[in-house]
Amino acid sequence: MVTDTPDDLGERSARTLDGALGFEIVEIGEELARGRFEVTDAVRQPWGVVHGGAYAAMAETLASASTSIAVQADGDVAVGQSNHTSFLRPVVEGTVHAQARRRHRGRTSWVWEVDLTDDAGRLCALSRVTIAIRPAPG
Amino acid sequence: MVTDTPDDLGERSARTLDGALGFEIVEIGEELARGRFEVTDAVRQPWGVVHGGAYAAMAETLASASTSIAVQADGDVAVGQSNHTSFLRPVVEGTVHAQARRRHRGRTSWVWEVDLTDDAGRLCALSRVTIAIRPAPG
Amino acid sequence: MVTDTPDDLGERSARTLDGALGFEIVEIGEELARGRFEVTDAVRQPWGVVHGGAYAAMAETLASASTSIAVQADGDVAVGQSNHTSFLRPVVEGTVHAQARRRHRGRTSWVWEVDLTDDAGRLCALSRVTIAIRPAPG
Amino acid sequence: MVTDTPDDLGERSARTLDGALGFEIVEIGEELARGRFEVTDAVRQPWGVVHGGAYAAMAETLASASTSIAVQADGDVAVGQSNHTSFLRPVVEGTVHAQARRRHRGRTSWVWEVDLTDDAGRLCALSRVTIAIRPAPG
Repeated sequence: MVTDTPDDLGERSARTLDGALGFEIVEIGEELARGRFEVTDAVRQPWGVVHGGAYAAMAETLASASTSIAVQADGDVAVGQSNHTSFLRPVVEGTVHAQARRRHRGRTSWVWEVDLTDDAGRLCALSRVTIAIRPAPG
Repeated sequence: MVTDTPDDLGERSARTLDGALGFEIVEIGEELARGRFEVTDAVRQPWGVVHGGAYAAMAETLASASTSIAVQADGDVAVGQSNHTSFLRPVVEGTVHAQARRRHRGRTSWVWEVDLTDDAGRLCALSRVTIAIRPAPG
Repeated sequence: MVTDTPDDLGERSARTLDGALGFEIVEIGEELARGRFEVTDAVRQPWGVVHGGAYAAMAETLASASTSIAVQADGDVAVGQSNHTSFLRPVVEGTVHAQARRRHRGRTSWVWEVDLTDDAGRLCALSRVTIAIRPAPG
Repeated sequence: MVTDTPDDLGERSARTLDGALGFEIVEIGEELARGRFEVTDAVRQPWGVVHGGAYAAMAETLASASTSIAVQADGDVAVGQSNHTSFLRPVVEGTVHAQARRRHRGRTSWVWEVDLTDDAGRLCALSRVTIAIRPAPG
């Protein structure tokens, strides 16, 4: 069985959506994960503020990567199931900081809550991400 | 007051997140909107399937752009408030097609439901997007 | 193995939450379910309108009962996993009508969307309910 | 203008849905609220566990009552807009304890996150409730 190290993951992350949006994964762990992205045009919507999909995607990345790394030792894979992101305060520049906390570790699903804040520490978006746990195919 | 035409919007869309992820807006309207994106690495997560954030972002783009175009004539702006996307079937290649239907048109918020399907017409993700309506600043 | 008929279910439903709130199940099916409740004080919040929890509960009842009846023949049980209800229009009297449509039938989860309308047919609330499918214990 | 005290609210709460489900409001505040309910048949679904709608309703009650009490001094009213509850662990008996924390206080909406736990302190459900703030009618 091939298992991912955080480094493998980082390399593949850089050339997929995470890279396209400039996401930086700061910390991956079983109970806590952190990431950030700079506010460039790649994460803005046409009216100049950060696109809601950028917050949702960052939350998804942290929850999904953390769960994947954790469960692969048991021969399981993590599959994103649901992402609910609320947008609280528009951000136009600077850096968006994300912190994901695991709230539930079940046999068949993990649930994460993710706070996204601006450089002043103000809460800009909130996300709840549910990740399904499945036996690895094959 | 500056108002957006769909063409203005398309130009700014192309150089922001929509462009970074290869989103194509097919139709914008008050009650229905459609878009699509090709499955390239720009919308994949590191394990090769379409990133949950890509579905969420496409749904957000359609709901937000359609509402914005519709309400600006009244001097209002549209502000994304909530996006809840469920992931039903992984997609690894081809094109993802999105169709957004407006389900509610209130004075202070509009609600859209978005179906995302693969090339075979199978439902891959579902999104509910709530857009707040606010008086334009200034 | 004990299996439920819709009649068994109806009897137990009447003496649990469904009964406490006056819920009436009109139709249970694998792809469509319908129910309704009269607007009495039992479903109101203290300010006189229908309590958000009543819409959420009715949606949950329809999705959960329909899935349970459908999957028990395979030795599986249905377990509510997530309920997201948006409140669109306050209702103060009359009857609330609910129609649930199954949008996804996966091996490990079913997803339902539920429209809740008033006597004039106006959409009052929308719900998405995810039901997990698990092997029956024992 | 008539304003509610927590006592007025408690009296009306007792004869509406909160009373029908046996909800007890323990604390109402601008940033924190707490409540609980005993697990009787009134909050169970037909299979004997706590009905998902009971968790959603309790979260809605706490967020809605707390916001209402807080904003009425400014001539505003609180209107429930969205409730997303995830069910993590079934409860069959004892008491369910709910704690709501305000995460966002905007001019037009407040957002609360609610943890629901069993007698052993285990997390059984999580809810995010969005409450819209509107000028009082009349």
